[in-house]
Amino acid sequence: MPVLVMKFGGTSVATLDRIRRAAKRVGVEVAKGYDVIVIVSAMSGETNKLVGYVEETSPLFDAREYDAVVSSGENVTAGLMALTLQEMDVPARSWQGWQVPLETTSAHSSARIVNIPTDNINRKFGEGMRVAVVAGFQGISPEGRITTLGRGGSDTTAVAFAAAFGAERCDIYTDVDGVYTTDPRICDKARKLDKIAFEEMLELASLGAKVLQTRSVELAMRYKVKLRVLSSFEEQSDEAGTLVCDEEEIMELNVVSGVAHSRDEAKMTLISVADRPGIAAAIFSPLSEAGVNVDMIVQNISEDGRTDMTFSCPTNQVARAEQALKAAQDAGSINFHDLVADTDVCKISVVGIGMRSHTGVAAKMFKVLSNEGINIKVITTSEIKISVLVDRKYMELAVQALHTAFELDKAA
Amino acid sequence: MPVLVMKFGGTSVATLDRIRRAAKRVGVEVAKGYDVIVIVSAMSGETNKLVGYVEETSPLFDAREYDAVVSSGENVTAGLMALTLQEMDVPARSWQGWQVPLETTSAHSSARIVNIPTDNINRKFGEGMRVAVVAGFQGISPEGRITTLGRGGSDTTAVAFAAAFGAERCDIYTDVDGVYTTDPRICDKARKLDKIAFEEMLELASLGAKVLQTRSVELAMRYKVKLRVLSSFEEQSDEAGTLVCDEEEIMELNVVSGVAHSRDEAKMTLISVADRPGIAAAIFSPLSEAGVNVDMIVQNISEDGRTDMTFSCPTNQVARAEQALKAAQDAGSINFHDLVADTDVCKISVVGIGMRSHTGVAAKMFKVLSNEGINIKVITTSEIKISVLVDRKYMELAVQALHTAFELDKAA
Repeated sequence: MPVLVMKFGGTSVATLDRIRRAAKRVGVEVAKGYDVIVIVSAMSGETNKLVGYVEETSPLFDAREYDAVVSSGENVTAGLMALTLQEMDVPARSWQGWQVPLETTSAHSSARIVNIPTDNINRKFGEGMRVAVVAGFQGISPEGRITTLGRGGSDTTAVAFAAAFGAERCDIYTDVDGVYTTDPRICDKARKLDKIAFEEMLELASLGAKVLQTRSVELAMRYKVKLRVLSSFEEQSDEAGTLVCDEEEIMELNVVSGVAHSRDEAKMTLISVADRPGIAAAIFSPLSEAGVNVDMIVQNISEDGRTDMTFSCPTNQVARAEQALKAAQDAGSINFHDLVADTDVCKISVVGIGMRSHTGVAAKMFKVLSNEGINIKVITTSEIKISVLVDRKYMELAVQALHTAFELDKAA
Repeated sequence: MPVLVMKFGGTSVATLDRIRRAAKRVGVEVAKGYDVIVIVSAMSGETNKLVGYVEETSPLFDAREYDAVVSSGENVTAGLMALTLQEMDVPARSWQGWQVPLETTSAHSSARIVNIPTDNINRKFGEGMRVAVVAGFQGISPEGRITTLGRGGSDTTAVAFAAAFGAERCDIYTDVDGVYTTDPRICDKARKLDKIAFEEMLELASLGAKVLQTRSVELAMRYKVKLRVLSSFEEQSDEAGTLVCDEEEIMELNVVSGVAHSRDEAKMTLISVADRPGIAAAIFSPLSEAGVNVDMIVQNISEDGRTDMTFSCPTNQVARAEQALKAAQDAGSINFHDLVADTDVCKISVVGIGMRSHTGVAAKMFKVLSNEGINIKVITTSEIKISVLVDRKYMELAVQALHTAFELDKAA
């Protein structure tokens, strides 16, 4: 029988009632003839509670014990989901990570999946079991200890199972009904996309559209796993949600598929840096060592052997960046007149795989922003994305104007 | 290094603070030179919460899934205890049942321990680890599924580890500071016992002194594991608590060690039963099949080929007993005039290993009760115990009078 993977996040299994609702969705797919692998997260709030216990107990915790504690929330949901399915007369059983066994590296609390043997679960499917409920987010290390996969681990578990079992599709049930052209809370003309290409989803995920974790999208792209994002709180048809798939499967590629924004950006400028070969390395190596995630970088035109260097990083890393750069200044490896941090900015991006073959997207974007009187502070581009930093007060205006200009608005 | 097993129950690990306090006690024993195996229960309330989830999800639950869900509470505590010990610079790690592996039968939710291999944990002790924190109450079946040991499972886990590792002693930390001559809430002259023999403890445990689970005492007796019961809420010396041990280790055996009581008893009388060979079997077989735990049985003297038959059972099984006996009457296998249930009784027992060599204990007991005007309804005796059923209103009086008469009162 064809295999389907269905993943339910924390809000979708937050109560026994919600678990029942999710189980009914699983039952519908079983009735269609699928053998189903269900991946579950912990009931929402549970993992945070456990993480809180660990951090209070031991600020510099042993990641192996962290994993042993934190993984227990998913075990509870897996058992309860199996029981709920059995109550509905659907033959089901639960599997904890080590029982599959989902083999991972030993990098505790951010382990990578190494292998998922399919024989145990497939044998049970052969014996008439219709649903394998697997605790997400967890695996077992070569040393036999419990590992967890880090943020977004359950999405990644789901995609990895879909790849290992050659599943027809991997359905990610969440609290939104799909991927939108932009954030509906900011732009009421936002439209749900029926399909989106992996590459676009990757850019959107990393830009803060928190529907799917970047890592699971990368994995899906590599193994060509069809991903569908849909709501566990609505009645669903086969056409519901958004399908994340290979671009070949999308008939008409959009030039621009979405407009993303991120509030969590700060702009930092080193004023009057001595401009010499190796200066970029001298600036960004200490930042990297300090764990600062530098995103955009702009170097101004040099004048009299000095230049201004601007970069962006997450707002909560500004203090760390300042400290690292001042230490480098004190150590004599760089020399600047001043360091200015601007936390009152935001990042706006347009993403679209069609940009590859269409020119003029950047020019159009800049013109739209200019028409609205919005000054662009920093620009970066990739093959399928253009991002700009602008004053935060313009965020809504910029998103709405770009959404309309790139013809993403839903039909009135 | 000598091995010590220390078990902490749910109230002893109910909060992070209490886990810290328990860990300090462990640290004291490590400092004395012991390698320690710590068995932990779930934080108090957690297991009941999980059981509630399961029962609400599926009234006739699959016990395999029940075990997978319910065992997770102990895993959390085990990890947190290991982290707490590490914070105190005591080398420790946690073990879940399947990691030891604690091998059990497949009787889910009431599994029996089959084997505890010691090599994994001993190898770690050899590498410098000082404390193995083991999640209590759980194991793994031959099929690789998680099992739980049922009520009192963590006490049983602790004793089994002590037997497997040849531990010097098994310390059971709980919310009382030892075993008493009687319930201090009923008799303010109750005295803590320094030592008690396994057989006495067994009788007291099964009579409702809920300090230790019967099963763990049986196991300790079989493997000669010295058990100590003590409070996790008080500063402890080496002499604290009560030592449960082989009678050979107790210099002066008490004729009577304790007076126990149980409110949860009902007396049932079948009036005017036809007295013929096989009548006892005809009455008690259907009760046994109905799951009624018959405790005491008395058959009156027969008259004109008919007799009265009286027995006791737990109060909450009265309805079930009545149903079973009426069904047997209807089926013609027994014949009685009436069935009378008296739920207003209680059981009072005196227990003491010295009874074996002392006569007159029963006579003295009956005389004491008679002097207080207490009528005895049913009597049973074993080698080291005499139990009587009396009206419930006399419970406190009977306990106090017997406690004094058998010289158990503490020095004023």
